[in-house]
Amino acid sequence: MRKTTGYALLTPGGRLEPWAFERRDLRPDDVAVRVTYCGVCHSDLHAVEGATEAALPLVPGHEFVGVVSAVGGEVTRFRVGDAVAVGNIVDSCGVCEHCRAGEESYCREFPTLTYGGVDRRDGRPQRGGYSSEYVATEAFVYALPPGLDPAGAAPLMCAGVTTWSPLRHWDAGPGDLVGVVGLGGLGHLAVKFAKALGARVAVFTTSPGKAQAALELGADEVVVSSDAEAMAAQAYRFDLILDTASAKHDPSPFLRALRMDGTLCMLGIPDRYEVNALSLLLGRRNLSASGSGGRRTTQEMLEFCAEHGITADVEVLPAAQVGTAFERLARGDVRGRLVLDMGAHADA
Amino acid sequence: MRKTTGYALLTPGGRLEPWAFERRDLRPDDVAVRVTYCGVCHSDLHAVEGATEAALPLVPGHEFVGVVSAVGGEVTRFRVGDAVAVGNIVDSCGVCEHCRAGEESYCREFPTLTYGGVDRRDGRPQRGGYSSEYVATEAFVYALPPGLDPAGAAPLMCAGVTTWSPLRHWDAGPGDLVGVVGLGGLGHLAVKFAKALGARVAVFTTSPGKAQAALELGADEVVVSSDAEAMAAQAYRFDLILDTASAKHDPSPFLRALRMDGTLCMLGIPDRYEVNALSLLLGRRNLSASGSGGRRTTQEMLEFCAEHGITADVEVLPAAQVGTAFERLARGDVRGRLVLDMGAHADA
Repeated sequence: MRKTTGYALLTPGGRLEPWAFERRDLRPDDVAVRVTYCGVCHSDLHAVEGATEAALPLVPGHEFVGVVSAVGGEVTRFRVGDAVAVGNIVDSCGVCEHCRAGEESYCREFPTLTYGGVDRRDGRPQRGGYSSEYVATEAFVYALPPGLDPAGAAPLMCAGVTTWSPLRHWDAGPGDLVGVVGLGGLGHLAVKFAKALGARVAVFTTSPGKAQAALELGADEVVVSSDAEAMAAQAYRFDLILDTASAKHDPSPFLRALRMDGTLCMLGIPDRYEVNALSLLLGRRNLSASGSGGRRTTQEMLEFCAEHGITADVEVLPAAQVGTAFERLARGDVRGRLVLDMGAHADA
Repeated sequence: MRKTTGYALLTPGGRLEPWAFERRDLRPDDVAVRVTYCGVCHSDLHAVEGATEAALPLVPGHEFVGVVSAVGGEVTRFRVGDAVAVGNIVDSCGVCEHCRAGEESYCREFPTLTYGGVDRRDGRPQRGGYSSEYVATEAFVYALPPGLDPAGAAPLMCAGVTTWSPLRHWDAGPGDLVGVVGLGGLGHLAVKFAKALGARVAVFTTSPGKAQAALELGADEVVVSSDAEAMAAQAYRFDLILDTASAKHDPSPFLRALRMDGTLCMLGIPDRYEVNALSLLLGRRNLSASGSGGRRTTQEMLEFCAEHGITADVEVLPAAQVGTAFERLARGDVRGRLVLDMGAHADA
């Protein structure tokens, strides 16, 4: 077994603490990654806040970059020293129709998550990227394109691909008006992607104070979504709206902003959505929801980012300040994405 | 003005009663239709039950066939004596992008309904097809193809086009598995259409007793939707599901029956839908809703019905028995569609 250290929730309701644990010995198709930067995702906060005794110890972290530290005997795509990235899924059944179609994040048997759940081969609990080293199947490790700032690239692996996937699936591009609800980790990357794909972009925000930030990111318009009059003026305008708001809310006003046959894709995931029926009927609009992305989509996104110089806007904190990171995320005191410097952890 | 008689709600909470009233004098593009058969739609029942003082007198009826009794000076497509049909919309703005695209039922200015609301040119209240004669703009009057039984054709004009439109929009055909929730006026036509379009069809019903009727209509499978185990076995099977159930219900079990990227289209219209978020996310499925159809779609449906010999399964009652028809519809004692014989009314 490979010894490593990380930050774990050890008691329900507690805080993340330094914790020493073991990763599996490398299987022939495994890659060991020395983690350098790991993004702090809202779902990390949810996982820690909602963790029951059975889920402990819980090591969060599912969007990280690092350097290959060892490879199994059958690994062909990576060598020690390569810069790589890992996202929120690290395995899937590989044989269902969704996996065969390259949509591993929609694996019918449910994909293996980077943390939470268990490895599908040995049944051991998965521990995440808030750690010095991670071990993953080669197939779900991606080459980090040269030229991308590693800290800024880490959030691409969850926040990035989660917004990239629906933009590509619904084919956003020139001539389209794309709406982005919320300007957090996901939203700010959605704006960058949609603009780089050639679409016109409007940001919906409840905070008029974020208008300037949205415009600086490249948004063409800003709509204050708490302003009923401003929202009414958006009727039938948008081809696609990505709703990244994680708090429970009524999606109907955004449905009404769609053009006929347009789609509102929910990326935050409350338990239930409740929508006004006429908001769907008038305009035959669609409500959908989307997860992250499979291997093909993730690879495509990384290549697009390299080509267009896109990374997340990040603030880097030493890993030891993970508690501060969580507190700031909980109170919304983040611009772009917080990223933990796991190397600073290793040095500490 | 043209004198006519019909059945109207004259007091809120009352019953439909014989009522003499006037239609407008023919405008140059108007067609007067002597109504022969008018279908009894669930929305007629809702309209009567929910009518306030301001909506009275209310004459329901928005799916009917008849014979042209007079034409305005500029009418070119019809002559007195022609067999024609009229559906649930009789005018639209004609200039918005939806109208220009031939989707008049989605008119941005809201289409003029066959009853309820007012005529968009003279502002007078619209009275429906439970009457001896109706007057409509030529553009929204359709030639009834020869060979179609008139009584069976009447329900095509609302129940028919409401199910035909989504089947065509989502391109149901060979290789597809289409689900139909409910086997009432809309559902039984959806089964006939989907089969004739070449799809495989399954009916979802809460009534095991309706299984035989579903199979006789041509359904390939029947699923009892109140059976949780049977429903679980449908996961990821359907390309498209049309939900015709008018009572409020949770659409989530039908979402989970969809294949990846499939669509659940709601045709009954409660105030709000509440769905489980994961039912959308797992499989990136779509929830939509659809209205009736524009001129092009309605014409196309009538031609398809003529070619394939499709009409509704109907039970014809004399117009004077409209009260009985409403009572039976309210308690679900209908197979296919009830149709009023307005000629029997005229003779009475």
